[in-house]
This record gives sequence, structure tokens and C-alpha cells, in this order.
Amino acid sequence: MKNFKLTIRYDGTRYNGWQHQKNTKDTIQGKLETLLMRMTNKTEDEPITVIGAGRTDAGVSAIAMTANVYLDTTFSEQEIKEYMNKYLPDDISIDDVKRVDKRFHSRFNATGKTYRYTLWCGDTKPVFDRKYVYVLEKMPDIESIKAAAEMLIGTNDYKSFCGNKKMKKSTVRTVDSIKIFQKDSYIIMEFHGDGFLQNMIRILVGTLLDVGYGKKKPEEMKNIIDAKDRQEAGPTAPSNGLCLVEVDY
Amino acid sequence: MKNFKLTIRYDGTRYNGWQHQKNTKDTIQGKLETLLMRMTNKTEDEPITVIGAGRTDAGVSAIAMTANVYLDTTFSEQEIKEYMNKYLPDDISIDDVKRVDKRFHSRFNATGKTYRYTLWCGDTKPVFDRKYVYVLEKMPDIESIKAAAEMLIGTNDYKSFCGNKKMKKSTVRTVDSIKIFQKDSYIIMEFHGDGFLQNMIRILVGTLLDVGYGKKKPEEMKNIIDAKDRQEAGPTAPSNGLCLVEVDY
Repeated sequence: MKNFKLTIRYDGTRYNGWQHQKNTKDTIQGKLETLLMRMTNKTEDEPITVIGAGRTDAGVSAIAMTANVYLDTTFSEQEIKEYMNKYLPDDISIDDVKRVDKRFHSRFNATGKTYRYTLWCGDTKPVFDRKYVYVLEKMPDIESIKAAAEMLIGTNDYKSFCGNKKMKKSTVRTVDSIKIFQKDSYIIMEFHGDGFLQNMIRILVGTLLDVGYGKKKPEEMKNIIDAKDRQEAGPTAPSNGLCLVEVDY
Repeated sequence: MKNFKLTIRYDGTRYNGWQHQKNTKDTIQGKLETLLMRMTNKTEDEPITVIGAGRTDAGVSAIAMTANVYLDTTFSEQEIKEYMNKYLPDDISIDDVKRVDKRFHSRFNATGKTYRYTLWCGDTKPVFDRKYVYVLEKMPDIESIKAAAEMLIGTNDYKSFCGNKKMKKSTVRTVDSIKIFQKDSYIIMEFHGDGFLQNMIRILVGTLLDVGYGKKKPEEMKNIIDAKDRQEAGPTAPSNGLCLVEVDY
């Protein structure tokens, strides 16, 4: 068995997220696994597992998700890439296939991740990227969002920003940076950290928007973190504005 | 009645083109007219006509189509824009509304148009703009395409490049420039001229691709023009790669 690292670009709009689920194969992972089983002539009894660097929610897209998979194949890296791109749907692309060490694990070896959240506010409409932006009715105050973002970085227990109420593992994470850019009608929020909890970015965005609309003050961010209570943070922003940009190794 | 100039951005993917048709209101023009009748409380007996600068085919998009329309309204330019953007579908945006002279006619006063055709060729897939590019299996030769493009510009009878076999009016047009850019996996063809015949850009693209694949030689272009015969030119490239970029006045 050879271990391959895949770099995957996908439009998550019509999928139930990355992760394989019991009731549906309509996940990115499901599409990849089904195809790789066909490629290597495996039956249902010999399932193939594509191990993703993370689990993107339903509707979230990725420019460069990474994954690894053990395959019993004589195909070269390029042949695997060509085969997969030929048979995968138009909204999933394999941008790179690389043979890696047997011990490489896409999730355990990942040292950092970059996510981008795209907001849009204007008196026209984002026609061509409408599926990948969260359209705001009113322009939030960017300076207070930037001030609040500064207070949200660091190594903290982000339990208040965790969408999984039953989370039993540690909710401590390190968020290195939250960059806020404004260009024309777009507001881009770019998050870098060692890893993120379920819905964490979307809750951070919802909280920052609360600040931008004056519902919360930047200096309240520390209290929200300290509360370790999901109720203290803002709402979960919609999934479609979110995109996994890069995974560091 | 006041005359307003509209600048419209649309994703043409799911429409039967710009122009109002007997059997369907599923055209950009149809959507605009229906909405403007509602806005001005008009009945079916008092139809409103939105006059477009040109007629884009089914599936063709626009960054800045222009049109003019006579309206019996007290709404300001900004109010019309806001009303229209509120009620139009997500894939149509009114980017500008401007009150213009009563004599302004979006088609007759237009002095030039820019169209862009986007091609894509690579061993990955254009996931996020897949609906707006024509994906090629094999990379064509760009230098011969550029050479052929040079021979297609000028003031000529472009009958060989006209998709309307029953065209009775003049098929003489001036094509000022055809620019060919290559960036990563994209090949962009940008056409500027005083006006274009039905399907003309798509047939020009199909013909240039024939050159790129060695089926035709650049120096044959003059013969194709001289033939005034649709059969001599290349195939009609798919509509989805085409976008109206700008209308000059």
C-alpha cells in the first residue's frame, strides 16, 4: 500500500460537508472514496478511507484541502490525478497528488490552517460569486471589528466559539492572526491558527459582526472567551462565505 | 416619461438570452420589464420596453450590459436601483441607473463593444468559475491564434461569421482589436468592435481554435472572410465562455 497526499479544491455549496456520513455519500470524502474504490477495483468489503486535514461543514468550500489515502495501485501520481479529475464532478478538482511517507497523516501532521470568510455589502449584487459570499444589508464598522479581532487572537480556550455542545476534547486552540481587509464591496476576514473547533470560524465571524453593528464592544471579547459559554458569543455566520485556503505542514 | 440608462451585470447561465421572446419571460429583458411594470403599476396593456445595447445569446453573461427605458415614475435614480436590486433574482444586478436625455438610445448611440471569451486548459479543473469558461481538452497553439487574430481585424464583411442565415441587413462590421492573453490555465480572448453579428464572437473563437489546433492556417483567415460563407469558418464556441464587458458611448 502506498500513501498519497491529495490537494483538493471544491465548491462545497451542494455537499453535506467534507466528512463521510452514514446516511449520505453526498460529501466530498464520500465522492473521493467511491471513485478511488472504482479506480483500484475494491469492493464494499475493502473500503478506502480518505483522511482529510479537517472537516469542513456543509456548504463550506476549499481552495486547498489536503488529505491522505493508502492505495494499492500501480498508477503514478499524475495518472491518479488525471483519473480522478476525469471522473469527479465539476465542482471537485484534484490539484495535486504526491506520494508521501507511510507515516504521513494529513490531520495529525498539519501544523496550521488558513480559512477565509468573505462578506459583501453594497447597493449592487455580487452576481458571479453570489454563492461564495455572505451578503450584508448594512456596512458594519470595520475599525471596531479590527479592534475586536485583535482581542480574539492568542492561545485560549475557545469553548464559547465551539458549535459542538458535546465536545469532550480540549477546546484550547491558538489563533495566530485574524486579518480584516476591505476592498470595494467586499470584506475579507482571514484566520490563521493551529486548528479550529467545529463552527469556530463562523461563530468568530458572527461575533465580529455583532461588534461591527454595535451590539457588542471590542473589549467584551475577553469576557466572551472567559465565559466558556456558547451563549455569550455571537451567531454562527452562514457556511457559504467560508473557504479553507491552506493547510500547513 | 423620463429616460433612464441602466447598467446591468448578469449571469446568463440559466436564461434564454437577453431578448424578450414570445414563448418565455425567462430572459434578462423579460425579468427587467416585468419588474419595472410592477414598480410603475402598469398593466399588460401598457407594456414597458427595456431597450438593450445588444442581444446576448442564451447562456452568455455580462459585466456591463447597458439599456435604456422610458419610465413614468417619481423614483430617483438611486431608488430605482435599490428597488430593482431588491426584487431581481440574485443572478441579475443593476449596477447603475442614470437619467439621460430623451433622445438617448442604448443601441443606436453605442459606438463600440468589448466582449471577452474565456477558455481554460489544464490538468486540474476550474471549480469556482466552471460555468463561465469553455474547458479545452488540449492546449492550442497560442502564437498561431495570435497571428490569425491579427488577420481577422479590420472593416470587413463578416458574413462567414454570422450565425443568422436569414440576415438581410449589412454584415459589414469593424473589429478594432482581438487581444489574446494567457495566464495560468486560462486563455482570454478580448474582442473590441463597433458591433458584432449574431454568434459572431463565438464563431470567431471557434475559428481561432481551429487555427490553434492546426486545422486551419492563420493565412487562411482572409479567404474565409472573402468567402462570405458560414461553412468556411470554424464551429460556434459554447455560449458560457462569453461575456459582454463594456459598451462605449
